[in-house]
Amino acid sequence: MRPSGREADQLRPVSIETGVAKHAEGSCLIRMGDTHVLCTASIEDRTPPWMRNSGLGWVTAEYGMLPRATNTRNRREAALGKQSGRTQEIQRLIGRALRAGVDRVVLGERQITVDCDVIQADGGTRCAAITGGWVALRLAAEKLVRAGEVSENPIVDHVAAVSCGIHGGRPVLDLDYAEDSEAGADANIVMTGSGGLVEVQMSAEGAPFSRQELDVMLELAHKGVAQLVAAQKAAVEGA
Amino acid sequence: MRPSGREADQLRPVSIETGVAKHAEGSCLIRMGDTHVLCTASIEDRTPPWMRNSGLGWVTAEYGMLPRATNTRNRREAALGKQSGRTQEIQRLIGRALRAGVDRVVLGERQITVDCDVIQADGGTRCAAITGGWVALRLAAEKLVRAGEVSENPIVDHVAAVSCGIHGGRPVLDLDYAEDSEAGADANIVMTGSGGLVEVQMSAEGAPFSRQELDVMLELAHKGVAQLVAAQKAAVEGA
Amino acid sequence: MRPSGREADQLRPVSIETGVAKHAEGSCLIRMGDTHVLCTASIEDRTPPWMRNSGLGWVTAEYGMLPRATNTRNRREAALGKQSGRTQEIQRLIGRALRAGVDRVVLGERQITVDCDVIQADGGTRCAAITGGWVALRLAAEKLVRAGEVSENPIVDHVAAVSCGIHGGRPVLDLDYAEDSEAGADANIVMTGSGGLVEVQMSAEGAPFSRQELDVMLELAHKGVAQLVAAQKAAVEGA
Amino acid sequence: MRPSGREADQLRPVSIETGVAKHAEGSCLIRMGDTHVLCTASIEDRTPPWMRNSGLGWVTAEYGMLPRATNTRNRREAALGKQSGRTQEIQRLIGRALRAGVDRVVLGERQITVDCDVIQADGGTRCAAITGGWVALRLAAEKLVRAGEVSENPIVDHVAAVSCGIHGGRPVLDLDYAEDSEAGADANIVMTGSGGLVEVQMSAEGAPFSRQELDVMLELAHKGVAQLVAAQKAAVEGA
Amino acid sequence: MRPSGREADQLRPVSIETGVAKHAEGSCLIRMGDTHVLCTASIEDRTPPWMRNSGLGWVTAEYGMLPRATNTRNRREAALGKQSGRTQEIQRLIGRALRAGVDRVVLGERQITVDCDVIQADGGTRCAAITGGWVALRLAAEKLVRAGEVSENPIVDHVAAVSCGIHGGRPVLDLDYAEDSEAGADANIVMTGSGGLVEVQMSAEGAPFSRQELDVMLELAHKGVAQLVAAQKAAVEGA
Amino acid sequence: MRPSGREADQLRPVSIETGVAKHAEGSCLIRMGDTHVLCTASIEDRTPPWMRNSGLGWVTAEYGMLPRATNTRNRREAALGKQSGRTQEIQRLIGRALRAGVDRVVLGERQITVDCDVIQADGGTRCAAITGGWVALRLAAEKLVRAGEVSENPIVDHVAAVSCGIHGGRPVLDLDYAEDSEAGADANIVMTGSGGLVEVQMSAEGAPFSRQELDVMLELAHKGVAQLVAAQKAAVEGA
Repeated sequence: MRPSGREADQLRPVSIETGVAKHAEGSCLIRMGDTHVLCTASIEDRTPPWMRNSGLGWVTAEYGMLPRATNTRNRREAALGKQSGRTQEIQRLIGRALRAGVDRVVLGERQITVDCDVIQADGGTRCAAITGGWVALRLAAEKLVRAGEVSENPIVDHVAAVSCGIHGGRPVLDLDYAEDSEAGADANIVMTGSGGLVEVQMSAEGAPFSRQELDVMLELAHKGVAQLVAAQKAAVEGA
Repeated sequence: MRPSGREADQLRPVSIETGVAKHAEGSCLIRMGDTHVLCTASIEDRTPPWMRNSGLGWVTAEYGMLPRATNTRNRREAALGKQSGRTQEIQRLIGRALRAGVDRVVLGERQITVDCDVIQADGGTRCAAITGGWVALRLAAEKLVRAGEVSENPIVDHVAAVSCGIHGGRPVLDLDYAEDSEAGADANIVMTGSGGLVEVQMSAEGAPFSRQELDVMLELAHKGVAQLVAAQKAAVEGA
Repeated sequence: MRPSGREADQLRPVSIETGVAKHAEGSCLIRMGDTHVLCTASIEDRTPPWMRNSGLGWVTAEYGMLPRATNTRNRREAALGKQSGRTQEIQRLIGRALRAGVDRVVLGERQITVDCDVIQADGGTRCAAITGGWVALRLAAEKLVRAGEVSENPIVDHVAAVSCGIHGGRPVLDLDYAEDSEAGADANIVMTGSGGLVEVQMSAEGAPFSRQELDVMLELAHKGVAQLVAAQKAAVEGA
Repeated sequence: MRPSGREADQLRPVSIETGVAKHAEGSCLIRMGDTHVLCTASIEDRTPPWMRNSGLGWVTAEYGMLPRATNTRNRREAALGKQSGRTQEIQRLIGRALRAGVDRVVLGERQITVDCDVIQADGGTRCAAITGGWVALRLAAEKLVRAGEVSENPIVDHVAAVSCGIHGGRPVLDLDYAEDSEAGADANIVMTGSGGLVEVQMSAEGAPFSRQELDVMLELAHKGVAQLVAAQKAAVEGA
Repeated sequence: MRPSGREADQLRPVSIETGVAKHAEGSCLIRMGDTHVLCTASIEDRTPPWMRNSGLGWVTAEYGMLPRATNTRNRREAALGKQSGRTQEIQRLIGRALRAGVDRVVLGERQITVDCDVIQADGGTRCAAITGGWVALRLAAEKLVRAGEVSENPIVDHVAAVSCGIHGGRPVLDLDYAEDSEAGADANIVMTGSGGLVEVQMSAEGAPFSRQELDVMLELAHKGVAQLVAAQKAAVEGA
Repeated sequence: MRPSGREADQLRPVSIETGVAKHAEGSCLIRMGDTHVLCTASIEDRTPPWMRNSGLGWVTAEYGMLPRATNTRNRREAALGKQSGRTQEIQRLIGRALRAGVDRVVLGERQITVDCDVIQADGGTRCAAITGGWVALRLAAEKLVRAGEVSENPIVDHVAAVSCGIHGGRPVLDLDYAEDSEAGADANIVMTGSGGLVEVQMSAEGAPFSRQELDVMLELAHKGVAQLVAAQKAAVEGA
């Protein structure tokens, strides 16, 4: 039995509210249960120095967490003077994941920065950031299309992510913090709308996991991502 | 005529929504027009090293702004590796202001950290942070009272803040960004619920201002703070 | 009775010695009692990147304090690896204050950096830095005039600053450290030679202050600044 | 055809030379083809503050790369003033991986730090660091056993890692730099001596990869790790 | 002919003014021609953590230069966020040099920090800092003696320093900036009052120097230090 | 008797193995007894900004030490976020020393960076770095000659370095760590192949040293450097 009473393959309630940031070219607030992440996409007319004049665009991401998004207050990274290894790892992951859905030639020499700020955390923040970040990115890209700045939409496929893990000896989908903190393995899977694998990250916490457990987690993720892609579609259409 | 069509002494619509952060001991989202600040109060059972064993409590504040809270994206301070002078100045102000309403003997050897994170900015963020921060602080203190950890409420008076400025040659209350960016003087006034002055900061932008203009700005602020204190009362009672 | 035996409206002895730094375009050592600040003005032929090609000049300030300027040694900011929030707040104030006396069009695309280094501290260092910094700035500007690099003097008015506070329940002018450390309110007021207000900063320390106390402090400051402007005039003429 | 002429499932020549660092409690130089990593294990008699008095030991890792380990010189992280996100991600991975082979109760309140410094790089440095780091760790643990400081060997299983990827449309094992830089997917798999999965990290570079490709990569890794575990055994026995 | 018209073995005019810093336990302003260094000594009742409970005292030094001490303004190290390699090298030298004159057993578990801040620079600042720093240190030590906190004076010998160099092909003493910037070799020699060598640092600038040139520089330094020691004696006696 | 049983004027066994780093333009591993330093030279086609368009080349050096090169583990400078004063002092010395053997006009607008990384330390690492660094530099320069990028070899003379010290009251050559840690004086002498002095650094540790001791140390160094130059010659010829 999961602490939340959910089935092994059941996502938490998902909602994606678009247009929440008046200044950003694209934005949404994604809620996966009690995990709430504000995602904004900002367009700049130039790419980083190391890729100038390549004709290609760039999508990058930054991740942050408000100090009291968590059960006990975390020290503010800006005050500490650096981003933690965890933060950097997560934002590198988000950026890689989102780029998997972008045609960088169509985007042209522009950079879109997706900021994912965790307002409230209850497990799975990096996956929520990817799923919501894609919506913000897509909305920003549509703005480019409407303004006639790109010939077609450079966002060519959905990208969404979900966590899995082994809890109580059994693979389960979309862990909340209560499960995550006692899980025997922790996985984050990023997939496209057409079912391709973008990123698979699985870590044992304690004992190693088996190939069979890996297989079950991939199946759970496949199912979960499909629902998240549907939620993205609905959000974008309703925007 | 003000860009927003408001009267010279008219605040923007104010709303204070409490209980927005599930983990924090006290929280609210304050909206002054399009300026939205999320305020949380976190209680710790010990004070900073330099005041241990004094019997006194401490209240401090931290301030941040999401990168795309503004019209063009700001670089993330955590990524830059330091808080700007502006950020430090603002959070020092918020902390000083909030301490003016606290009986530190009653609070005892505890620290309450008030985090003020600007979700969306349209001028007056530091004043909104103080006004909202007080509500979060008050709610956290009530939690201490209910738990029997303090003998009485250590928050002894309201503290609220409002900006004024000279726009179009005329003193006005509660500037939004459009006014602020072309104001001839910029003021932030912090007052208590009983009308005492906690902090007065007035800066000329361009030409100096006169003593008479200062007097009018103080009157506007007096009026504005009274309304904000009323909004605080309503929010705390409704929490 | 003030610890120093001064009247409520009495400044400490002021002296401004010019030409103390052989390399700088303008310099002075200002002494307000035992507070001694070395001020130098350095001219560069270009402005910061963000204002290039605007035709405007820029005046900025940096503030420092020698480690043993104070009663107990402070850690050196260069060794700590960052300037404190207090230092940044003060140098931002000095820069804003000095710019209030400058015609940036006349100055042209030049930057003048005013360095204010506290050699010895006994309260009121930021005010002494502004008053002395103006003298260094003015002398540097005169050098530009003499060299024919500007058509007229870009320093169009005096800028001077003085502190006030409430000590022993009574507003007093120009607090030394003994008073400052037990003051009930602390104010720094910056004015021009023609009596305009440039910056008003008043903070309660402990109990809030009243509107009436504010008024008396402004009167004291008005009187004090007039004397400081006279001292500036004498220093510049004697240079 | 692979650039190196190897079969799809063929490792590069592996050598593990132990005892290369006179001061360290355990050390080896691991060579996977032209990738050379110096691994040392250092024992301290206390654990990090946050786990004191838990009775548990800790194993952590740090990773570095000499500036000219690569084809073009990289800037030295010590000179830049911070470790890159990539470095932090890798050393967090190494630490997690090595801990999977440790009985922290048997280790007791000690910390073993495994330093992995890349002397020369030709792809797969993080996997070589894990495989070699385990040898250094094991040798240090044996020193504790011989000294009678632990009751039995706290290193309870082998941990080794290998990279896989999709090159020229085909899954291959143990990519060198020439392959890695043009791979369509990049994977790092960490396993125990008994065949359990410790960490699976797979990233698409460009197009997503399929579930079938994932399966083949896992098979290749399984085979490669078995050979690396044999090399570890030989190295430890010969030490 | 030297730019200054001095003889090869002629020091610049030296003056040492004591008691210039009201708060410090010992202080002086040393002037070697146009090089002016403010030296203060600050006593603390505890030594750094790594030498606690050894019974020994410690003397350390910090060095700084005001931004406009030089011909063109240098960026402030506190603003840059770190001390340059040059600054660190100099302050390590000053500390080592001063410790050569201290009986650390007599000093007991105290630390004396000597701050040397260059107010104006014209070559030879590190040597002036050592010579003046010793005076500040000695005066602080005398204060300990007068207060009965040490049984005898822990400063057991003079320590003074002078620069030499090869200018125009000829060894000369005490280079000013004009000479220093075109010197063929640059030396700093630290000696005790009794003629022992504490530190010899000689660097070729361009062509190597000969053993014979080294010998002449040591003779010049010997002569110069003797005069500086006499100036120290006079300053301490007159304090 | 020296701890190692060596004569006072006897170097430790020296070996210089070239071509140890596949990617670098020049490289060697120098061993002075148990001190092992890996030296690489990297050529870039441009010089630092401050010397562009001067027609001159530049040689610079960086120094690092692996965390467990020493008896107890040192914290990694990259993790600490800064290079220590000691590191900076050493790499400045190496750079100055190597430049003494370079004709910067012949080198042309190129920069060669010599990285010296201590793999294992047993005293005298900075001297080994200079001696080995010169070999790496020379080999890189020969590559430029062979490629026809320079008209003749810009490395015009050998540069080598050796330490001396006073141990057990007697000057000795090439101290290992056991001697160095109890030496009464510590010297590093850099000379050219033709016997010129490039850098002399002598520090008293405890009591001052005499002029006579200085003379003996210079003689020892002279002898030691001659042997190191011979080893450099053999290494370069054998490369």
